[in-house]
Amino acid sequence: MFILVNLKAYPCDPIAVAEAAHEVAEESGVRIAVSPQASQISAVAETGVETWAQHVSPNQYGSFTGSTLAEAAAEAGAVGTLINHSENRLKLADIDSSVQAAERAGLETCVCGNNPRQIAAVAALGPDSVAVEPPELIGGDDSVATADPDIVEDAVAAAEGVDESVEVYCGAGISTGEDVIAAEELGAEGILLASGVAKADDPKEALEDLVSGL
Amino acid sequence: MFILVNLKAYPCDPIAVAEAAHEVAEESGVRIAVSPQASQISAVAETGVETWAQHVSPNQYGSFTGSTLAEAAAEAGAVGTLINHSENRLKLADIDSSVQAAERAGLETCVCGNNPRQIAAVAALGPDSVAVEPPELIGGDDSVATADPDIVEDAVAAAEGVDESVEVYCGAGISTGEDVIAAEELGAEGILLASGVAKADDPKEALEDLVSGL
Amino acid sequence: MFILVNLKAYPCDPIAVAEAAHEVAEESGVRIAVSPQASQISAVAETGVETWAQHVSPNQYGSFTGSTLAEAAAEAGAVGTLINHSENRLKLADIDSSVQAAERAGLETCVCGNNPRQIAAVAALGPDSVAVEPPELIGGDDSVATADPDIVEDAVAAAEGVDESVEVYCGAGISTGEDVIAAEELGAEGILLASGVAKADDPKEALEDLVSGL
Amino acid sequence: MFILVNLKAYPCDPIAVAEAAHEVAEESGVRIAVSPQASQISAVAETGVETWAQHVSPNQYGSFTGSTLAEAAAEAGAVGTLINHSENRLKLADIDSSVQAAERAGLETCVCGNNPRQIAAVAALGPDSVAVEPPELIGGDDSVATADPDIVEDAVAAAEGVDESVEVYCGAGISTGEDVIAAEELGAEGILLASGVAKADDPKEALEDLVSGL
Repeated sequence: MFILVNLKAYPCDPIAVAEAAHEVAEESGVRIAVSPQASQISAVAETGVETWAQHVSPNQYGSFTGSTLAEAAAEAGAVGTLINHSENRLKLADIDSSVQAAERAGLETCVCGNNPRQIAAVAALGPDSVAVEPPELIGGDDSVATADPDIVEDAVAAAEGVDESVEVYCGAGISTGEDVIAAEELGAEGILLASGVAKADDPKEALEDLVSGL
Repeated sequence: MFILVNLKAYPCDPIAVAEAAHEVAEESGVRIAVSPQASQISAVAETGVETWAQHVSPNQYGSFTGSTLAEAAAEAGAVGTLINHSENRLKLADIDSSVQAAERAGLETCVCGNNPRQIAAVAALGPDSVAVEPPELIGGDDSVATADPDIVEDAVAAAEGVDESVEVYCGAGISTGEDVIAAEELGAEGILLASGVAKADDPKEALEDLVSGL
Repeated sequence: MFILVNLKAYPCDPIAVAEAAHEVAEESGVRIAVSPQASQISAVAETGVETWAQHVSPNQYGSFTGSTLAEAAAEAGAVGTLINHSENRLKLADIDSSVQAAERAGLETCVCGNNPRQIAAVAALGPDSVAVEPPELIGGDDSVATADPDIVEDAVAAAEGVDESVEVYCGAGISTGEDVIAAEELGAEGILLASGVAKADDPKEALEDLVSGL
Repeated sequence: MFILVNLKAYPCDPIAVAEAAHEVAEESGVRIAVSPQASQISAVAETGVETWAQHVSPNQYGSFTGSTLAEAAAEAGAVGTLINHSENRLKLADIDSSVQAAERAGLETCVCGNNPRQIAAVAALGPDSVAVEPPELIGGDDSVATADPDIVEDAVAAAEGVDESVEVYCGAGISTGEDVIAAEELGAEGILLASGVAKADDPKEALEDLVSGL
């Protein structure tokens, strides 16, 4: 099980969360990564935690201003990247080029989608993993453990139908260790979460709860 | 074989092209449609030719200004629509919603993509057909008859691998009857073309050449 | 005072609203226009009512698929167009090009903005008019007659500071004749409204109320 | 005169350029800043050179993934930011919000535009400076010293007509010290350049030439 903590643009201390994630990963043996703002990638990576970008641009080296070049993210210390997060929806052609750009830069890729149809679509673009973000669960209090289980299972089936090598993550509805177990039982091989850790009073405690059942 | 003539934003007479297309379709028995600007859909449809929108928006009825509502296009006389043309690339989530919107409005859908990866992706969204627009052929003088045949064959295989019921059209590199035959032999069940007819001195003659080998 | 009825993507009968608007304009002498979906421009214009597009694209004639060509909108019967409505925000460079495109096509232009800063900005692009759409009033029940009067007055002053020839319309918070008078007293030379007429049980009655105090 | 070196997504060594810029600024007394990828802001700022972001997002703290938060750029060491560069055109409403976001974060702002109309528009949004990027000069071999002088002078007049406190920079057509002098004589108080320094075999020599006439 892979746990990816998205720091979004939260007013949290990225270093404190990164250190907590690093410690819990070491102590538990569970793979945990942290995804900060692009300008904080190097500081977060220096803590030793696995560091992901929140986005990379479809472009390669060249005359592009204000882009998030995959190679620059990698050089700053990122080893993976989210693409097409529900808060940063991209054109299909740009998702395709961003996956290619991330691969050229040696970044692992996780492409997000809203529903099983979109999950099948992004699985066809050759990413390492996909994350399903059901609108019913995004930003809400509902948990994947109590919501309609079809949501995750259908996404897993949809991705498998296109490319069996693509892992499926659960991209919403996770805030407790119980949710992580529920996601795992539905076939997810990883989870994305954000405020549950980034906004926690004690991020380390929140992470320890998340990995407690694994 | 289906021939879709995209009038784009060309300074042509949409009624003259529509009438020519209608006549050649009647005379040859080949299915031919014309895709004008949204504001010309009703005038084109009145000629009796099969009429397609160039795009529909992902939204349904509601507070959306400047959108191209699928239901309004259908009411004006359209029976199908292009989606995600290379000149109008959409976000993946919007392609998904636009296909759903078109289906609700009873419009046939053809979703475009640049390469076999993208063709597999859009085939997963459940359209009636997909059109491959290889960048090598878009707007160029190269013809699908002489270009690398893998371009179309790989797209056909990619779509079939995801959904066998989705037809594959050739979306670039077509200007003559010979090109149409070449596309058909590569597995395409339809073709998209634009300037070859819309900018022809004699659109009817151009269309007669296109269907001559079918 | 100019009254522009934006039909958005509402499930209304555009012809019925157009006929009502035409009648009330004739009877009252007040200038009233109707802005339908692009695909309904010709049908609306045939009623004799002044017809506006909801949006035009920045492009000119050429290889553009799914655009709303200003010239095509004009040919279908539009005499004006909204640009940059709050439901269709454009890049600054595209607002600039869309105003130029509309002028080439002989369309009157009304560019929208959220606040006095943006109103000053769009006034600098040379449109015929600008419409202020304060976020506080958009889609709400608040009326410009009862809201903070600074909202409209500051927009009028901002536009005047840049170009005195640009008219300022009130783009939100209008649903009754009383609101129209309030907007006029605040310096607006026109109003934009939508659901108040388009969704009214009796559009003609709603329009008669709007013009009753003029 | 202010010289801003935009590193774009060039495959250059940002630290080497930053150190060269810092040295030439110290030696010449001319204000020189370097604008790297977001992920390199902290490394560039550590050299001591004045550091600018290439872009900031319109959002504030919150649930935004893949954005370039102004506060995070400032925390990493940026003291200013470009907004709406010709390679990263933004919606008008987002330019407005990005200027506000940058100001909240204490970043100096330079908003770009293509022509005098757009320069007047962005000057109305309250930035510290604006940069005119005439399409005739962008990425070409033409120099502002030899091109039509009206291009820069009209932009200076347009900005002054809206807000006299806004400085005007020349955003294209600069590669030599002679060009810098020409821009200064046309009324520019700063210049933006990119490949002339970032791709130079010897960035320090290139910068020394640029400041040689000041």
